[in-house]
Amino acid sequence: MEEKDFEILDNPLDPKPLYNALAEILDAGRYAQLRSELIELKEVDIAEFILSLNDEKALLVFRILPKDISAEVFSYLDSDIQTSIAEAMTDAELYRLIDELYIDDTVDFLEEVPANVVSRVLKIAGKEKRNTLNRFLNYPENSAASIMTNEMVALHTHLTLDAAIEYIRKTGVDKESVYQCYCIDKSRHLVGTVGLSDLLFNKSDMLISDIMDTENQLIYVETTEDQEAVADIAKKYDMLSVPVVDSEKRLVGIVTIDDIVDIIEDENTEDFERMALLVPSDDTYLKTSVFSLAKNRIFWLFILMITATFTGKIIEGFESQLALIAGLTACIPMIMNTGGNSGNQASTLIIRGLALGEIRIRDYYRVVFKEFCVSLICSVLLAAANFGIMCLIGLIDGSFSAERLPMYAVVSMAIFTVVILAKLIGCSLPILAKLCHLDPALMAGPIITTIVDAISLVIYFAIASAVLF
Amino acid sequence: MEEKDFEILDNPLDPKPLYNALAEILDAGRYAQLRSELIELKEVDIAEFILSLNDEKALLVFRILPKDISAEVFSYLDSDIQTSIAEAMTDAELYRLIDELYIDDTVDFLEEVPANVVSRVLKIAGKEKRNTLNRFLNYPENSAASIMTNEMVALHTHLTLDAAIEYIRKTGVDKESVYQCYCIDKSRHLVGTVGLSDLLFNKSDMLISDIMDTENQLIYVETTEDQEAVADIAKKYDMLSVPVVDSEKRLVGIVTIDDIVDIIEDENTEDFERMALLVPSDDTYLKTSVFSLAKNRIFWLFILMITATFTGKIIEGFESQLALIAGLTACIPMIMNTGGNSGNQASTLIIRGLALGEIRIRDYYRVVFKEFCVSLICSVLLAAANFGIMCLIGLIDGSFSAERLPMYAVVSMAIFTVVILAKLIGCSLPILAKLCHLDPALMAGPIITTIVDAISLVIYFAIASAVLF
Repeated sequence: MEEKDFEILDNPLDPKPLYNALAEILDAGRYAQLRSELIELKEVDIAEFILSLNDEKALLVFRILPKDISAEVFSYLDSDIQTSIAEAMTDAELYRLIDELYIDDTVDFLEEVPANVVSRVLKIAGKEKRNTLNRFLNYPENSAASIMTNEMVALHTHLTLDAAIEYIRKTGVDKESVYQCYCIDKSRHLVGTVGLSDLLFNKSDMLISDIMDTENQLIYVETTEDQEAVADIAKKYDMLSVPVVDSEKRLVGIVTIDDIVDIIEDENTEDFERMALLVPSDDTYLKTSVFSLAKNRIFWLFILMITATFTGKIIEGFESQLALIAGLTACIPMIMNTGGNSGNQASTLIIRGLALGEIRIRDYYRVVFKEFCVSLICSVLLAAANFGIMCLIGLIDGSFSAERLPMYAVVSMAIFTVVILAKLIGCSLPILAKLCHLDPALMAGPIITTIVDAISLVIYFAIASAVLF
Repeated sequence: MEEKDFEILDNPLDPKPLYNALAEILDAGRYAQLRSELIELKEVDIAEFILSLNDEKALLVFRILPKDISAEVFSYLDSDIQTSIAEAMTDAELYRLIDELYIDDTVDFLEEVPANVVSRVLKIAGKEKRNTLNRFLNYPENSAASIMTNEMVALHTHLTLDAAIEYIRKTGVDKESVYQCYCIDKSRHLVGTVGLSDLLFNKSDMLISDIMDTENQLIYVETTEDQEAVADIAKKYDMLSVPVVDSEKRLVGIVTIDDIVDIIEDENTEDFERMALLVPSDDTYLKTSVFSLAKNRIFWLFILMITATFTGKIIEGFESQLALIAGLTACIPMIMNTGGNSGNQASTLIIRGLALGEIRIRDYYRVVFKEFCVSLICSVLLAAANFGIMCLIGLIDGSFSAERLPMYAVVSMAIFTVVILAKLIGCSLPILAKLCHLDPALMAGPIITTIVDAISLVIYFAIASAVLF
C-alpha cells in the first residue's frame, strides 16, 4: 500500500500505472481486494478509473463500491456510463442514489441522460424531491439558478449561536458547504452572512443577528443572472460561494466555488472556440462525434471561403498589371500574412482584456491611441527589415538592380500601411462587437485576417499603381 | 444609504455611478462622510475606487481608511500606487501595514516595487518576518512556493479537539483559511487533514489523530512544483487550499483557492497570448507600455514575415504559368485562407484539450483519425460548394465557358486536398510540441497558417500543372 500511495502522489495528474494495476486485480476477479484498494482513493480518481474501463466492467466496479462513496463517484462519471448504471439499477437502488446525490449533481445528470431515465428518476424520487428537481430543471440554461445547489446552511437571525451550531450539527453534515452560512429573516429573505468560525469564536448566547456580516454590502445574484457574471463576482470578491435569491430577494440556493472554477474554464474554452470560429460545444473533443465536429466547423469555413473568393476578385482586376513586373505577385502572401498576424495580435489582447474586465468600452480611445503608437513602431521596423531582406535576396539570386528599388519600396510602403491599419482594425472590432452586444471573441484571427487581406490587397495595388505604373 | 446599497447591488460589476458620488464627496472635502461611506464597501471595491483617482487623491483616501481594513485594501492596489503609499508612510506606519498584510500579499507587493522600497520594508519588518520574507522572495517564479502563504492552521496530531479549537480561537483569527486545517507530527511532517466542522461535530475529548482524514490519499505539492500543476490538482480534487511541503514532506504553506483562480486565469491568458504569437506579459493591457507591447509582438511578426517571403518564392517560380490562365492567381487567397482556417480550428481544439487534460499524447492516433474523418466531410462540402460558386460567378460575370471547367475543377481539388492536410497538420503540431516539451499553444493559428500557406501553394500549383499545362 505504501508504495502504491507514493506512486500516485508522485504525479496525481497521471495515475495510469495505478489504474493498470487495479485493472489487473479486476480481471483476476479479486473483488474484495479491489474494493479495499478503491476506498483508499479519492472519489474523482475512482471515477477516472471507472471511465477507463468498458461499460460492462465499469458497472461491475461501480457496484463493488460502498454506498457512502458511490454517489459522489457517480457525479464524476460521464452521461453515457451514468445512463448505463441508472438503467441497470433497481428502483430502490436508484432512489438511494438520488437521495445521496447533491441537487446540482442530480440536475447535471438529468440534463444529459435520455428522457426515459429522467422520467424514471422523477417518478422514483418522491414528491418533494420531484418538485425541487422539476423547478431546477426549468431554470434557463447558463443562468445562476441552473448551476446552484439548494444544500446550503440557512440560519434564522433570531437563533443563538449555540442553537445555530446545534442546528448545523444536526442538518449540516450533508450540506455542500457548511463554512459559509447565510442569514435569513422569517420570510427567508437574505439579510446577512456568517462564517462557521464566527459562530465558534463568539459567545454562545449571542444571536445570529448580533454577529452576522451586514456591515459590508451584501453580495448576491438573482436566479436569472448569467453564470459568467456569477463567476466574475466570485472572482472579484474572493467568495467561496455566491448566494442566489429570487426576484423577492428570498434565498433559494448557492453556487459553490468548484462550480465557479468549472464555469471559468468553460467560458475560456468558449472564447478559444469562438476565436477560431468554431461553434462552441459542451462536450470534450474526444467525446464529440465526427459529425458534430464537422457541423461546428463548416459554417464559418464556408462563409470565409466565399469572402476570400471576393478578395481574389481584387487580384483579378489587377492581374494584367501584376504580370508586367516580376515578383509583384510573389509578395502578396507576405503582405497579407503580416497584416493578418498584426491584426490578430491586437485583437487577441483586446478580446482577453474585455473578457477579464481589464478593458471597458469607455477605454476605446486610449486603446486606439496605444495601438497606433505600437503599430508605428512595429510597422517602421518591419518595413525597413523587409526592404533590407528584399535587397539581400535580390543580391543572392542575382535579380538585384537599381530599377528594382522602386518595387522594393512599394512592398515596404504597403507593409508599413497595412500593419498600422491591421492593428487599428484588430483593436476596434472586438470593442465594436461588445458595443453591439456580440461576443468580442468572434472578432479574432480568422475574421480579422479576412478583412485585413482585402484591405491589404487594395492598399498594395494602390501604392503599386501610383509608383510603378 | 439604502438607495446607494441598491445601486451597487444592481450591478456589482459596474459600480461607476457610486465611484462618481464618492469622488464628489472627496472633492467637497467631506472626509468624515467619505470614511463612513467607504467602510460600508468591500475592500476590493474601495481599492477599485482608489485606483480610479489620481495619485494625490488616492493617497489621501488611503489615509482616511480605518487601520483594520487598509491592509486588505492595500493588497488589491497596483504596484505604482502601492509604491507611492509606502514611500509616503512613516516607518511606524509601514511596520504596521506589513504586520497586517498576509505573507503572500506582502511577497506580491515586494516583487513588483522598486528595490529601495523593498530594502526599506525588509529593514523595518523585524528579524523573524525579514527571514520569512527573504525565504519567500527566493522561491522560483511560478513555483507553488511563490504563491503560497504560511498563514494556515497546522494542528499537532496529539491535540484533543477541544484544545485544537482553543488553539484556533487564539491564533486562527489572522489565518487566511481556518476551515481546512492540516495535521502535522512532531517534526512538522504533513500527516493528514481535518475540517473545522470535523473538530466541531465530534466529541471534544477525541484526538486529532482519531478523526483526521488519512483514509483517502493525501494530496499535496512540493515547493518547487509548477503553479499550473497546483491549479490542476485543486481543480481535479475540488480543494479549497492545497498544502505545500518541502523535500522532506514538512508542511511549509498552503495555496488558497483565490490564488488558484488567479493562476487559472493567468494560464489561460498566457495561452491566448501564445496562440496569437505574442510574448506573454504579466501586466494588463492598459498598464503595459507602448514599447513593451511592441517588443512582445515584433519578434514573431518578423519571423513570420520572412517565412512568408519564402512562401512568395513558390509563387515566383510559377508566375509565368499563372499569367497564362486568367483567374488562377485570383484564387490564391481563397485557397490559402480556407486552408489556414481549417488548420486553425483543429489546432485550437487540440491545444485546449491538451491544456485541460482532456487529450493526452497517447490519444494521438485517435485524434488524427477523427480529424481525418472530420476533414473529409468538410473538404468534400467545401470543394463542391466552391465548384458551384465558381460556376455561378462565371455565369454572372459572363466569363463562364466549358473550357473554364477544368480550371474550376483544379481549384476545387486543391481545396479538397488542402483542407484535409491542414486539419491533419493542425491537430498534429500541438501534440508534437507537447511531446518535445514545448508549449502546444505556440502551434496555433499564425504558425499553422504560415505552414499551410506554403503547402497550399505547392499543392495548388502541382494540381494545376498536372491538369492544365
